[in-house]
Parts: sequence; structure tokens; C-alpha cells
Amino acid sequence: MAELQNDVFLRALLRQPTPYTPIWIMRQAGRYLPEYNKTRSQAGSFLKLCKNPELATEVTLQPLARFNLDAAILFSDILTIPDAMGLGLYFADGEGPQFERPLRDEKQIQSLSVIEPEEQLKYVTDAVRSIKQALNGRVPLIGFSGSPFTLACYMIEGKGGTEFHRVKKMAYERPDLFGKILEVTSASVIAYLNGQIQAGADAVMIFDTWGGALTPSAFKRFSQNNLKQICTGLIREVNGRVIPRVVFTKGGGQWLEGLSETGADALGLDWSTDIATARMRVGDRVALQGNMDPAILLTNPEVIQKEVGEILAGYGEGFGHVFNLGHGVNQFTPPENVHALVEAVHEQSRGYHAAG
Amino acid sequence: MAELQNDVFLRALLRQPTPYTPIWIMRQAGRYLPEYNKTRSQAGSFLKLCKNPELATEVTLQPLARFNLDAAILFSDILTIPDAMGLGLYFADGEGPQFERPLRDEKQIQSLSVIEPEEQLKYVTDAVRSIKQALNGRVPLIGFSGSPFTLACYMIEGKGGTEFHRVKKMAYERPDLFGKILEVTSASVIAYLNGQIQAGADAVMIFDTWGGALTPSAFKRFSQNNLKQICTGLIREVNGRVIPRVVFTKGGGQWLEGLSETGADALGLDWSTDIATARMRVGDRVALQGNMDPAILLTNPEVIQKEVGEILAGYGEGFGHVFNLGHGVNQFTPPENVHALVEAVHEQSRGYHAAG
Repeated sequence: MAELQNDVFLRALLRQPTPYTPIWIMRQAGRYLPEYNKTRSQAGSFLKLCKNPELATEVTLQPLARFNLDAAILFSDILTIPDAMGLGLYFADGEGPQFERPLRDEKQIQSLSVIEPEEQLKYVTDAVRSIKQALNGRVPLIGFSGSPFTLACYMIEGKGGTEFHRVKKMAYERPDLFGKILEVTSASVIAYLNGQIQAGADAVMIFDTWGGALTPSAFKRFSQNNLKQICTGLIREVNGRVIPRVVFTKGGGQWLEGLSETGADALGLDWSTDIATARMRVGDRVALQGNMDPAILLTNPEVIQKEVGEILAGYGEGFGHVFNLGHGVNQFTPPENVHALVEAVHEQSRGYHAAG
Repeated sequence: MAELQNDVFLRALLRQPTPYTPIWIMRQAGRYLPEYNKTRSQAGSFLKLCKNPELATEVTLQPLARFNLDAAILFSDILTIPDAMGLGLYFADGEGPQFERPLRDEKQIQSLSVIEPEEQLKYVTDAVRSIKQALNGRVPLIGFSGSPFTLACYMIEGKGGTEFHRVKKMAYERPDLFGKILEVTSASVIAYLNGQIQAGADAVMIFDTWGGALTPSAFKRFSQNNLKQICTGLIREVNGRVIPRVVFTKGGGQWLEGLSETGADALGLDWSTDIATARMRVGDRVALQGNMDPAILLTNPEVIQKEVGEILAGYGEGFGHVFNLGHGVNQFTPPENVHALVEAVHEQSRGYHAAG
């Protein structure tokens, strides 16, 4: 495996000195790039693109050819695990992910079993190996998965949403059944992320997309506990290098203290949280990743530079900040604005890293 | 005007002693009630129901006939103001509110003018007068409006959403134009709520449904400032009785400190905020209204009683809590669960009000 030429991202996640604030962008390989749309239409669909290691490698590297990003992220979906469990992931035009066979009876739930990544999700670990080879040490590669609670939401509702009434009804009325789903998905996420690490992922991120839909006590019970369990089960070091873990609960800005005790090295922040306040609250327990509103990328370089300046000043001096958006990049973003963002973060952040 | 027989709700909003915790429920007159669906189909549509003072009175009183609620809320929509401005409010089947003529050019925006409630929204003040007469002093009546930012979101996008890219692009790139919209809607909200107060509303609530979509600094600039301006402009007393104001920013749990300085007497809380923490943060500056997850009402009386107990214990001893859901009641809620909720709040809260 080629030596890493740029490990600024990994060092920032571990709160070690860096010369500047590293940046990557959620959904950086995505529909705002014409070359992505070309490869996607060649693959036939988003899901076929995910399942084709060669094309997944191609799109993973596309944003790195345009922008001076400090990390690559595996091109995949957060819902590969339930798909491997047989629920039948599909994407209808213009809608979010859905399942053909959502969990609707107890028997289905009792028969769920933990996935074995090198068997059921080999297209993912193959993609990791292929991307690592193509990157040739240029920047680190991030592996990822959905969180157990987020996977359970999709598995029970059959799709995303905002209310999750079916999920919550089960969680409150049948905690035994809901617990069974969380148990199997947690063990699967551990196996899956460890499979990605063994295939070469340099860091991993857990997307708790729907954790913010819960009350504070339900969040601890139905999401945070499982995030902690996962962090405990993950491979910590490969060849003497620590594999950092990032946990991102969208809408979880009020629960950073609890999240900082899960064993995560870094927490993702959406844009509803002030990064200066967040840093005070988590102290030196974790690094922070975020948190520009993706809507800013629809404006112009002047507005982008100003917002970058405010977020960098908010985090302030010292190490432990990875710049990112607070959510995935919007498909209507002009690529030149992403260029302006990456340059602004690199240039403006040097002053905060005097000792790096 | 008949003397109020139950002012527990108004006293709680002003943090005065009460014998128990009062309760009302967002969207308490709604689709979960068969009698509501009957009246609505008689009216022909939701909007026709809003615009018919006699039928609006009928549905406003329906939940009071079933449950021992401590307040009634005007049956109306948060978007009446932009409709009165000529944007053409409509509801497509199974979708949220939309506008036929959203704001898409500068000329449209420059020609907006402040509404005059007794002229352009007389159906609302007529409904307030009619409801007050029908209530005959049984419980207080809440008037309401959308917040300027929330109105602006719908006016610019033409519908609700989660990302509001069009709104944010204008707010960041053309703060002059966006400011013009906020200025006209703020002045209109003041005139509108004062019109409702003059017609008999005993308290008013401002629904900032989309304020939570902003960053902390953008929230201050584009929503909180206007909420403060509105509170400053509202009629404070009628016949020696204070008219309390409630401000509710959905997703604004991280900004309670700022919201407590707008001049609101009480803040609405969604369920993502722990009410014990919220009370510590706002101190004795404001009362709190909330904050049970509406999904709990889809379970059973046992779960409901337990959740009520946790929220009441969270708020703790003393005054200044109005029980409510953290969002509108879901249409699939069994009415008997709402009954269980109201009874549980009244019974369990007496122990926390020893001095009331």
C-alpha cells in the first residue's frame, strides 16, 4: 500500500497539529459535477454505480481531480446493510431510498441476521480496495455506514421521512422487537466498517441521519448506546496507525456532550449549531467536523469567503477542526463555488495553525 | 364579554401560581377527530373552512366538547397574510400549503404592502369574535400567525420544504430585498395579531416553523430580530388584563436564550429539547410550552402517562409550564389517547403546584 502523502485530515480528527484546516465535502462525488452525471448514466442508475467497484472508483476520484480536497470518501449508500439483509433497496425517480420489503411483522424481525461483509457486501470492500489503489496514497479514504437507528428507520418505514411514527410506535410499545433490530444492525455495522478498514479505509464515519427526530432520552436509548457499542467494536489501529471514527447525528446539536462519550474521535456538526459553542461544550474530548450551510454554496465566492472566515474564527486557534458542510452538497451548486470554498478554507486557516 | 371561568393557561404563561399544569394541543381541532372531518367536508376544503367564521367556530369548539382542555385556538392557517397580499394560497391533495404566485421578481417584492386585517382578513377577526361568543368565557382563546421568516419562506419558495435554497440565496445575496419582505410581513403580523386581540383573542402565538433551518447567526438576523419587533408592537393589555405572547421556533432549541429576549412571555419547545435543561437556560425570563413527541399519542395510555410524568418531573416544581405537544397532533391519533393525555397532565401535575 502506498505511503500517505497528505494525512492532514487524519491528524485533525485526532486533534494533532496540522499546518491548515483540512476540508472534504459530504457528497463531494455527486450530481453537481457533470462528469459524475456522465458516469452515472453509463452505469444505468445510482445503485448500479454503487455496486460497480470500477465505476465507483472513477466517481470517487472525480472531485479530487478538480479540487484540492484533503480526503476521499467511498462512493456508496448508507443503506447497503439492509439491502444485504434482503430488504430490497431501490430508488424511485426524484425520491429518496426505499425498501421493497420493509419490516412489517415479528417473524421478519426475528429472522434478521448479522451480515458478513466479504460475502454479502463484497462489492463495497472491492470498491475500497480499488479506490485505495487508484488514490495511490494521495489523500486518506473515508469508509462509512448508516447508524443502527437510521438503518432501523428505513427498515421499518420502508423510506425516509420526518415523523417516523411507525418506528417510534414500535420503539415505545415493543422495545424488545426494536432492540432486536438495533442489535442485529449494530453488529452488522461493526462487521461492515471493520471490513472496510481491513480493505484499506483510513477513517470511518457513521451517519446518524435521523437520530435528531428523537427526544433527548429516546436518543440515548435508541441511538447513542448503539453508536458507543459500534465505536467499542471497531478496529482501532492498522499497521500502527489509528483509524479515526467520526459520528454525525443530523439535528443532534443539543446532544454533543453525550455523543462525545461514545468513543468517537470527532463529531460531525450540522449548521444549526454554533461551532464556537460546540467546541466549548465538548472541550478536548473530540474533534469537530463541519459546519457550513450547503445553501451558501449557491451564492458567490464573496459570500463563501465571508462564511468560511466566520466558521474558522468560531473554531478559533489550535487543532481538531475538519471543515465540511453541515449536510451533503446541493445538486445545483456551481463547481466553481466549491473551488472557491476549498481555496478559502486552506488560505484563511493557516493563521490559526501557527504551531502546525 | 363573558368573564373567563378558567384562566389557568393565561396565568401559567405569565408564570403566576396555578393549581395544576394547563394543557392545549397544537392542531387540537383537526383530522384525528371524526366530527372535524365531517365539518370540513361540509365546508368543501380546509381553506373554505378557515374562511367561514361559522364553521371555523364549530371546529374550534369540537375538541373542547371531548377533552378538558385549558385553551381554545383560533381555527385558521399560518399563511393567511401572504394570501391577503395576493399570492394565492392553495392546498393540493396530500401536500402542504402552496402559493400560486410566489415572489420571483424584484418588482413583485417592491410592490408588497402591509395588510389591514379588518379589510383583507375580516374573515379571521370575524371568526375570533364568533368563537369568543361561542366560548362564553369557558377557556381563553389563542390567536396566531406565522413568523415573518416563515411567511417569507413560503412566499419565496411557493411551498414548504427542508432546504429553502431560494430563500437563503436571496437572504445572503440580496439582504436588501429579503429585508423588504421581512419588513412588510413583520408590520403585517403586528397589525394582524393586534386585530385578533382587539376582536377578543386572550393570548397570541407566533409560529416560526422554519426558523430552525437557519444557522445561529442567520437566525438572529433573519428571524429573531423580527420576532422581537413584533413583540414590541403588540397590544400589551386589554381591560387591565395582559395578553401573553408565545414564540415557537421549531428546531430552535439551541437558541432559547436569544428567544427569551424577544419580549415573548413563553417559548414553545419541540421534543428535541430537554425541558429541565431548557428551564435552567431561560431561568425566570419566560414560561415554557411543550413538549411531548406527538408520536407518543400513537401508543397507549400507559406509555402516555409515563411520558407525561417525565416531562412534568423535568419541568419540576413551581409555575410557568403549559403542557403541549412539540408539534401538531398526528391525524392517526386515537382520540381516546388525547383524553388519556389531558387527564394525566391534570392529575399528575397537582403535586408540583402545592402553592397554587
